[in-house]
Amino acid sequence: MNTQVHKTDVVIVGAGPVGLFQVFELGLQGLSAHVVDALPQAGGQCSELYPDKPIYDIPAVVECTGDELTQKLLQQIKPFNAQFHFNQEVQVLEQRSGSASERAAFYLKTSAGTEFECGAVIIAAGGGSFTPVKLRVDGIDAFLDQQLFYRVVDPGIHADKNIVILGGGDSALDWAIALQPTARSITLVNRTDRFRAAEASVSKLRALEEQGKATIHMGVASAFREEAGRLREIMVTLRDEARSELWLAADHLLVFFGMSPKLGEIENWGLEFERRLIGVDQATFQTSRPGIYAVGDINIYPGKRKLILSGFHEAALAAYAIKEMFEPGKKVAVQYTTTSPKMHDRLGLT
Amino acid sequence: MNTQVHKTDVVIVGAGPVGLFQVFELGLQGLSAHVVDALPQAGGQCSELYPDKPIYDIPAVVECTGDELTQKLLQQIKPFNAQFHFNQEVQVLEQRSGSASERAAFYLKTSAGTEFECGAVIIAAGGGSFTPVKLRVDGIDAFLDQQLFYRVVDPGIHADKNIVILGGGDSALDWAIALQPTARSITLVNRTDRFRAAEASVSKLRALEEQGKATIHMGVASAFREEAGRLREIMVTLRDEARSELWLAADHLLVFFGMSPKLGEIENWGLEFERRLIGVDQATFQTSRPGIYAVGDINIYPGKRKLILSGFHEAALAAYAIKEMFEPGKKVAVQYTTTSPKMHDRLGLT
Repeated sequence: MNTQVHKTDVVIVGAGPVGLFQVFELGLQGLSAHVVDALPQAGGQCSELYPDKPIYDIPAVVECTGDELTQKLLQQIKPFNAQFHFNQEVQVLEQRSGSASERAAFYLKTSAGTEFECGAVIIAAGGGSFTPVKLRVDGIDAFLDQQLFYRVVDPGIHADKNIVILGGGDSALDWAIALQPTARSITLVNRTDRFRAAEASVSKLRALEEQGKATIHMGVASAFREEAGRLREIMVTLRDEARSELWLAADHLLVFFGMSPKLGEIENWGLEFERRLIGVDQATFQTSRPGIYAVGDINIYPGKRKLILSGFHEAALAAYAIKEMFEPGKKVAVQYTTTSPKMHDRLGLT
Repeated sequence: MNTQVHKTDVVIVGAGPVGLFQVFELGLQGLSAHVVDALPQAGGQCSELYPDKPIYDIPAVVECTGDELTQKLLQQIKPFNAQFHFNQEVQVLEQRSGSASERAAFYLKTSAGTEFECGAVIIAAGGGSFTPVKLRVDGIDAFLDQQLFYRVVDPGIHADKNIVILGGGDSALDWAIALQPTARSITLVNRTDRFRAAEASVSKLRALEEQGKATIHMGVASAFREEAGRLREIMVTLRDEARSELWLAADHLLVFFGMSPKLGEIENWGLEFERRLIGVDQATFQTSRPGIYAVGDINIYPGKRKLILSGFHEAALAAYAIKEMFEPGKKVAVQYTTTSPKMHDRLGLT
């Protein structure tokens, strides 16, 4: 539990590319920010879903992977020293003051107990917090992070294990191929004989199977056997006509069923939603609740397209709007980073 | 005169960063484009006003000069083979068809006689076409590009000349310093004793003056003397109390009074303007005239900020809107460049 309440101009919910760039745009306006994200690192969907795959439509960035985009943005926002709070979600949001220019209008608290007082909240939560789709086998949760894994953090811990991988997407295949050389055995179980993965990966896995270095089954994991509190075997119901049951030795079970977005507590903040998206004013990106803004894939307005570059634009306009909300009656003019001494000062260039 | 009429999906007016990125977004939608610009090269204001000065607020581009931004964008749009038509402005715009899905709804003709038939026009003209502010001395225009220059294209042609430079900004000082070593003489004439230029340049010029290698006068050019059709001398009215008249030998007269934007023929296209900016629908960036769109600094809508990144967003949404205009009744879904085979195909990656 963190007993210190962080006082900041803005709390940004979500550390994806748009949340990161939001730090930059607030910084140019002289506003401080803290960023909260459910994931263990910055990057959001980009780093979670396609860290190594190229993106081509970021303006003036001919090609970059999700991870590279995140790194570039982290470098760009460095001058503004935003504090990040990972592995936690905002659970409490309370209105402390009705005044729009009040810098402590909101009180927030996260699942990890981190507390904030801030003048505005910006929801940059993409499709919501991305959580792995769970394996639905009664009792299997007990082995989470010991023998059941939804992500590979340290490949080394999977060495010399009988590994069963569930799934048929890129993550499942890529990890089957990557872990094979050090594993005792690799078995991949997919629901169908169709993989949703790069063709090269499919060929590689098929080649490993032919060489007897990996096994592929079509079926669904439906039960397990444990011994002295340790997971020992996984039962797979095969997709043959007989619905045969196959027991596979499983020291480690790696599940890659994809990520599923959930909005979590944001749904209870009294905002106007439209098809699970947050309605915003197109000039300010403020939600139906004054002081709360939404940018990026989570918002909706006439013409909205879920493009990263649109999120960047929205972040810029939201920063101007918040600055003007904090200083009522004052019109904030555009100052260019190329020529404005104030901008240079805020960017730490002077 | 060009007798071939270019048939294209879209004509983009303006080759600044937003016009360039517009080519990209149209390309992703499978739409072809021709680009017209009054300047002799791509880049617009960025390349014209601050080619060498860093920009810091392009998302995921930590720092780049105006020229670098242009180069990155030119590289990014390469797959789409847009044709550029420089040194000309659109002078004629005629409506050929009232049908929004008609790919030859508009006929355009430029000042250079280039002709187009297209389905949509996108105005990405920034503050209008940037043209050098002219020296107002009766009859001086006759020497344009022979002895009177508003830009330096080939520094070599100014060697061994008596050069008079008018102006007090970066261009005036930078060229005075750069041309001094090869010039017969360099005289800089500025309206006041205050320069609007980098301090380092001012110091350098003052040093050259002290060394007797350059001359600085405070005054205004007001007349000239010619001999056998050649400009010989420029008269400067000094800012001293006596308003003395000073005759300076001038083989070459270089004028750097800055650039002034003008809208030109666009003002006569029947569009709705608001303070010299073109009003647009915020969802499509269509102007009051169907089939004509406006993106970047030239448009206005609630919340508008003149930011390059907003222009990028507008270009993306305009491309979707035009695609849907061409294919009525069909909703164009977002396809991501990271995962969509169709996008990869259009980007020439397959």
